[in-house]
Amino acid sequence: MKIAVINPNTTASMTDKIAQAARDVSYSETEIMAATSSMGPASIEGYYDEALAVPGLLLEISKAEKAGADAAIIACFDDTGLDAARSLARIPVLGICEAALATAAYIAQRYTVITTAEQSRLPVEGLVRRYGHGQKCNVRAANISVLSLEDPKSNARDLLRNEITSALNEDKTEAIVLGCAGMADLVMNLRSEFGLPVIDGVAAAVKHAEGLVALGLITSKRGPYVHPATKPYYGQLREFSPQVLS
Amino acid sequence: MKIAVINPNTTASMTDKIAQAARDVSYSETEIMAATSSMGPASIEGYYDEALAVPGLLLEISKAEKAGADAAIIACFDDTGLDAARSLARIPVLGICEAALATAAYIAQRYTVITTAEQSRLPVEGLVRRYGHGQKCNVRAANISVLSLEDPKSNARDLLRNEITSALNEDKTEAIVLGCAGMADLVMNLRSEFGLPVIDGVAAAVKHAEGLVALGLITSKRGPYVHPATKPYYGQLREFSPQVLS
Amino acid sequence: MKIAVINPNTTASMTDKIAQAARDVSYSETEIMAATSSMGPASIEGYYDEALAVPGLLLEISKAEKAGADAAIIACFDDTGLDAARSLARIPVLGICEAALATAAYIAQRYTVITTAEQSRLPVEGLVRRYGHGQKCNVRAANISVLSLEDPKSNARDLLRNEITSALNEDKTEAIVLGCAGMADLVMNLRSEFGLPVIDGVAAAVKHAEGLVALGLITSKRGPYVHPATKPYYGQLREFSPQVLS
Amino acid sequence: MKIAVINPNTTASMTDKIAQAARDVSYSETEIMAATSSMGPASIEGYYDEALAVPGLLLEISKAEKAGADAAIIACFDDTGLDAARSLARIPVLGICEAALATAAYIAQRYTVITTAEQSRLPVEGLVRRYGHGQKCNVRAANISVLSLEDPKSNARDLLRNEITSALNEDKTEAIVLGCAGMADLVMNLRSEFGLPVIDGVAAAVKHAEGLVALGLITSKRGPYVHPATKPYYGQLREFSPQVLS
Amino acid sequence: MKIAVINPNTTASMTDKIAQAARDVSYSETEIMAATSSMGPASIEGYYDEALAVPGLLLEISKAEKAGADAAIIACFDDTGLDAARSLARIPVLGICEAALATAAYIAQRYTVITTAEQSRLPVEGLVRRYGHGQKCNVRAANISVLSLEDPKSNARDLLRNEITSALNEDKTEAIVLGCAGMADLVMNLRSEFGLPVIDGVAAAVKHAEGLVALGLITSKRGPYVHPATKPYYGQLREFSPQVLS
Amino acid sequence: MKIAVINPNTTASMTDKIAQAARDVSYSETEIMAATSSMGPASIEGYYDEALAVPGLLLEISKAEKAGADAAIIACFDDTGLDAARSLARIPVLGICEAALATAAYIAQRYTVITTAEQSRLPVEGLVRRYGHGQKCNVRAANISVLSLEDPKSNARDLLRNEITSALNEDKTEAIVLGCAGMADLVMNLRSEFGLPVIDGVAAAVKHAEGLVALGLITSKRGPYVHPATKPYYGQLREFSPQVLS
Repeated sequence: MKIAVINPNTTASMTDKIAQAARDVSYSETEIMAATSSMGPASIEGYYDEALAVPGLLLEISKAEKAGADAAIIACFDDTGLDAARSLARIPVLGICEAALATAAYIAQRYTVITTAEQSRLPVEGLVRRYGHGQKCNVRAANISVLSLEDPKSNARDLLRNEITSALNEDKTEAIVLGCAGMADLVMNLRSEFGLPVIDGVAAAVKHAEGLVALGLITSKRGPYVHPATKPYYGQLREFSPQVLS
Repeated sequence: MKIAVINPNTTASMTDKIAQAARDVSYSETEIMAATSSMGPASIEGYYDEALAVPGLLLEISKAEKAGADAAIIACFDDTGLDAARSLARIPVLGICEAALATAAYIAQRYTVITTAEQSRLPVEGLVRRYGHGQKCNVRAANISVLSLEDPKSNARDLLRNEITSALNEDKTEAIVLGCAGMADLVMNLRSEFGLPVIDGVAAAVKHAEGLVALGLITSKRGPYVHPATKPYYGQLREFSPQVLS
Repeated sequence: MKIAVINPNTTASMTDKIAQAARDVSYSETEIMAATSSMGPASIEGYYDEALAVPGLLLEISKAEKAGADAAIIACFDDTGLDAARSLARIPVLGICEAALATAAYIAQRYTVITTAEQSRLPVEGLVRRYGHGQKCNVRAANISVLSLEDPKSNARDLLRNEITSALNEDKTEAIVLGCAGMADLVMNLRSEFGLPVIDGVAAAVKHAEGLVALGLITSKRGPYVHPATKPYYGQLREFSPQVLS
Repeated sequence: MKIAVINPNTTASMTDKIAQAARDVSYSETEIMAATSSMGPASIEGYYDEALAVPGLLLEISKAEKAGADAAIIACFDDTGLDAARSLARIPVLGICEAALATAAYIAQRYTVITTAEQSRLPVEGLVRRYGHGQKCNVRAANISVLSLEDPKSNARDLLRNEITSALNEDKTEAIVLGCAGMADLVMNLRSEFGLPVIDGVAAAVKHAEGLVALGLITSKRGPYVHPATKPYYGQLREFSPQVLS
Repeated sequence: MKIAVINPNTTASMTDKIAQAARDVSYSETEIMAATSSMGPASIEGYYDEALAVPGLLLEISKAEKAGADAAIIACFDDTGLDAARSLARIPVLGICEAALATAAYIAQRYTVITTAEQSRLPVEGLVRRYGHGQKCNVRAANISVLSLEDPKSNARDLLRNEITSALNEDKTEAIVLGCAGMADLVMNLRSEFGLPVIDGVAAAVKHAEGLVALGLITSKRGPYVHPATKPYYGQLREFSPQVLS
Repeated sequence: MKIAVINPNTTASMTDKIAQAARDVSYSETEIMAATSSMGPASIEGYYDEALAVPGLLLEISKAEKAGADAAIIACFDDTGLDAARSLARIPVLGICEAALATAAYIAQRYTVITTAEQSRLPVEGLVRRYGHGQKCNVRAANISVLSLEDPKSNARDLLRNEITSALNEDKTEAIVLGCAGMADLVMNLRSEFGLPVIDGVAAAVKHAEGLVALGLITSKRGPYVHPATKPYYGQLREFSPQVLS
C-alpha cells in the first residue's frame, strides 16, 4: 500500500518532519510517499496563502496518483484544497484537520485545537463546524508562526504549552489536537508532560487512509466530487486543464 | 494487537458473521476477539432492547479488557452502551455507527444509512446528529427485522435493495451505510451491484480501532468518561459495582 | 389519579425526600406512588451508573403500571432510561430534567442547571440540547456527590449556593434549575435566599404528569416508542423479555 | 386558583369555545376567567393582524391581573404578544402554541402542527424553532380561514382531516397539534377517528398554568421580562404607559 | 427616489438625528422622508415598548406609502413591527438591525452589537439569530437608556466606549454595530477613535433601501407577507382594519 | 466611484453580459470596471475549476485596486476566492452569491437558488449555510452547463424555467435567486413571466458595493482578513508573493 503525504507548504524541512511522523505510525507494509509542493507559499497562514497553495498541491496529488498512490493526505491543518483534490483524484484524499478531529471524537467529548497564528483561528473554526464538531471542539491560537516551529531557538514551543494550559484550565478540555503539521514531532513529549491525549493530524490521517484503502473505499463520484469536466484552461495555469493533468 | 468485537445481541450466528467481517479487513498482526453477550435480547430493535443489552455488553467489555484487548468495538448499529463502556474501560471503545459515519464523511458529502426496522430509524437519527453528521446524512428503514437477515429464505435482502434504490433516486445519495451489524456480509455484493461506496460499520470500526491503538490513544478520563466511582450496587446487578467488575 | 414516582437510585432516604416533594405539590386527588429501585447503583453519577440503573427502573415502571398508575416519573435528573420506559409502558413517562426545563422556559429566557458532580455536567448538557433548550440553558456542576446531599454535615449546600452565585454573576441567569432529585428539599430556601425562581424537577414533573393524565394523553406508539417486539431474552435478564415483563 | 384565558381575536363566539375547552380540563378548584379582546382584528391571520391584536390583549392581561388572576393564557396559536405580556404582568403568562408543543414532546418524538391559513405557516414555524422543537415538529396549513371554523356549513373540518392524513402518510407523524384556538372542540373526535394523540393548545396551557401556580413560580424579572420602565406614552395609546396601565 | 425613515419612538429629537444620518449617506437624487410616530412610547426599551410602538409605526408606513415612498426604513434597532409592516406595504421595508448586520457581514467575520439597556440585549440576540448571524455576532449592553443619548450631559457615550473596549479585548471583535438609532451621530468619532469599522443601522439601511429600489425589487406577496385579508377591526384600533388603512 | 467587476471565468463573452448587468443598475456616478481573468478555466463548475480560478482572480483584484477601484465584485456564484481576496485587498470585496442572498432576505422569507450543473448544487448549499441562510433558502440545479447559457440555440433557458416552476410548486418559494453570473440577462423576462421577485447576484452586488463605499466601510483587518504576511513564494506562482503582488 502506498500513501502519499503532500506538504502544500513549499518548505522541505517541514516535509521531513511530516514524513517522519507518518512513517512512525504506518504499518510496515505501507510505503509513505512524501512530497513537497514546488509552487506557492513557504508556509500557509491564512486564506491568501491557502488559496495560492492549491495549484501546487493539486499537481502533487496528480503526480502521486500516477505514481500508484492508493490514498493521499494533505499535510496542512487548513485542509487546503481538499474538495478540489477529491474532485481531481480517483483515490481517497484526506485532510489532517479532518482526520485529527475524527480521531479525537473517539476518545473525548470536548477537545481543543491549538493552531499557530491568530489569523488561522477562524479558518480552522470553519473546518470544525464543516466537519460536524462545532458543539465539541474549540480552537485557540498560540500566536506563533508556522516557520518558527522549524527554528530550535524560537519560544514557539513555550507559547504552545501556555495555550494547552489555558485550554485545560479555562475550557476543561479532555484532549488536545495540534493544529499544524509542523507540530508533529511534539506529540509524545506533550502527551507525557500534560497527561492527556494529544493528537497529531498527520499520524491520524495515515491510519485513516490505511483504513480506507484496506476497506476498498474510494471517493464517490456521484455528487460534487465528480471528475472535473473537459474544458479549456488558459494562461499560466493552462496545464491544469483536467484533460491535461489527469 | 488484540481488538475485541462484542455483539450485544445474544445471537451467536450474528457474531460469526460479524467476526468474519472484522477478520476480512484486519491486519495480519491483529487478533480479533469476538464475543457474544450472554444476557439480554436476542436482537436489538428499538430503545427497550437497547437498554437491556447494556449490562451484558459491559460484562463482555470488562472481560475483554482483562483478557488483554487493546480496543473494543460494540457491534450493534445503535452504539448501545457506548458512553457507559467508555467510562468503564481504560482501552478505547468504538461504536460501529460512529465509525461508519466517520468513514463515509471521507468519501462523500451526502450519505444514507439504511437501518432495519422503522423503530430504529429515529434512534439512529439521534446518533447521526450526536456525531455531527446531521447536515450530511439521512436515515431510511428497510422495514426488516434484524433476525430475518440471518434467514436465507426471507426477502430482507430485496427490501434492503429497494431502499438503496430509493436513496439513490430520491435523496441523490453518494454512498450507503449499512445500518445493522447483521448486514456485514452484503457489502461487496451491494457495492458492485449499485456501483457506489457501501460501508459496513464493523469493518470501519476495526480499521479505526487499529488506528487508535497504533497511535497510542486511549479514552480521556478528564471529562465524563472518568472511571465510575466506588459505591455499592444492589440486587441482581450487585456484581456490576465498579469495584467488583473492574 | 395515581402518579408513580420512581427513584432509580437504590437509596431509600432519597426516595423519602422525593416523595415528600411530589406530595407537597400534587393535587389532593392525586395519589403519589413512590418506589425505590431494588437493583443497581446506590447513586447515579455519570454514564456507567446511569446504564446500570435502567433495568431496575424498568422493573418499577412495569410494576407501577400493573398497580394502576396513570403516569410515571423517573426521579433522576439524568432522565435515566426514559426512552426505554416510554417504549415499555402504555402510560406517559416523564423525566425530571425534561419537566424542569419545560417549566423554566415558561418563566425565563436564560436559565442554569446546577448539577452535582462534574462528570454529570456533559450528560446533562446532552439532555438540554436534546430537549431543545441549547440556546437558553447552560449547565454548571457544584462538585458535590449525590449522597453528600443526604448528609446533614457535608458542605454540599454551601457549594451549591456558591455555584448559584456564579450563575447569577457570570451568566446573568434568570432562573435556577436544581439538577438532582436529591436537592428537592432545598427549593423554598434557595428561592427566598436568592430572590429568583428555583425549580425542582420532581415537583415540575408531578404537575406535568397530572396535566397529561387530565388531558387523556398517552405515549404515541406510532413511532420509536412502539411496544418492544416479542423475542427471547437470555441469561440474568431473561425476565425482562417484553412478553414476560408486561 | 384563577386562570385568565384571553382571546386576542375580537370574536366572542371563539371565546365561548375556548372557555369551554379550558373548563373541560381544569381542576374543580380552578376558576377560568375567559375574556375577549375589545380592540383589534376579528381574527388573527398573519403578521399584521397579530401585531394589531397586541394592545387589546395587553389590556385584558392587565385587567385580569388586577382582578386576581394567578396566571394568564393567550388563546391564539401565534402566541401573539407573549413577550410583551410577560414584561407587563407579574403573574406567569403562557402561549398556547408553547404549551401544546411542550405537551407533545412528552408523548412523541415527531409531531405536526396543522395550522389554518398558509400565511400562518411560517410564523408558526418561527415559534416552533424559538421554543426548541425545530428538529421534531413540522407545520402544515389546512388552507382554511379562522372564522370558517365557527361556521358549521363550511368544509373546514374536512380540509383539516385531509391535512392530518397527509401528515400521517408523508411525515410519519406520531401526534397532531391543532394550530388554532378555534379548533379546540375537535380534539376528541379527531383523536378517536385517527387513533393518535391530538393536542389542543388551550387545554395544554390550562394544565401547565395550573402547574406553575401550584409550584409558586412567576416570571423572572431579572432578564428581558423586567417590568417596563416608567416613561411617557403619546397619542391614542397614551393609556398604555406602564405607570398608567399597571 | 423617496425613502421613508420612520422613527417608531415618539421623540422628535431622535428623528432629527436619524434624518441627518440618513441624508449624510443618501444619493443626491434620494429624498429622505423622515417621520416620527405619533402614538406609543417616547423610547423603545424592551418587549413591552416595542409592541406598543407598532400601531403608530404602521400608520406612518401607510402614510409614507400613500405619499409616494419607494421604500421604508424602521429606525429602531429592535426592528419593531418589521413583519407586520412588510405585510401591509407594497414597497420594501427594512429594519436597521437587519441592514446593519447584513453590512457588517461584508467586512468582518466576527462583529459585536452594542445595544443600550440590558433588557434589549436578548431581544437583539433573537434578531441576530433570526437573520442568520448567530455564529458571527454577539451582543453587549452598555447599560444606558435610549433617551440619555439625547442628553449631552449624560455619561452614556463613555459607557458605550467602555463596552467597545471590552468587545475588542474579550471577544476579539473585528467590527462594531451601534445598536440604537440614537447613536447614529457617533459613527465617525468612534471609527477614528478605535480604528475599526463602526456601523450605524440607519445609514446601512438607507443604502440597502436605495439598492432594492434601483433593482426594482418589492416584497414578495407569495408567502407570509401576503397583504392582510379584509376583515373587521374593532374598538380603538378600528381604523387599522386593512381595508381602511391601505 | 469605481467598482471593479471581475469575471473569474476566462470567457470574455460572459464578462460582457456581466458588465452590462452591472451598468444597468449602477448610479450614473459609478464607473464599472469589468475584467476577465486571464488564467484558469473557461467556466467554473465545481470545486476543481473553482480552485484553479482563484489565482487569476486575485491578479485582477490586485490590478483593480491599483487602478483605483473603491470596491471589487467577484462575478461567479461560487464566490470563488472571496476570503483570499478580502485578505489581499484593502477595498471591500463582495461575492455575488453573498449579495444575492442578502438581498433576497429583505423581500422574502423563503427563496430558492437555481444553479447550473448538479455538481455546483452542494457547493452553493455550503455558501447558503455559511452566510446564515440555511433555514430560509434551498438550492436547485437546472442541469445546464455554464457555457450553454452563452449559446442562443441551447435549451438551457427552458431547463431553467422548468426548475423555477418546480421551486414554486414543490418548495412554495417566494423569490428566485439566479445562481450563475451568466444568467444576468434573464432577470427581467423571468420576473414578468413568473410574477415573483427574481434576483441576479451581479446587480445585487453592485448596489451593496456602492453602499459600502458610500458608508466609507472597508474590510476589517483585525481578524482573519489581515493582509498576508511577507514570505517567499516559489515556482510558477512566485509572483503572487504578497510583497510582489500588492
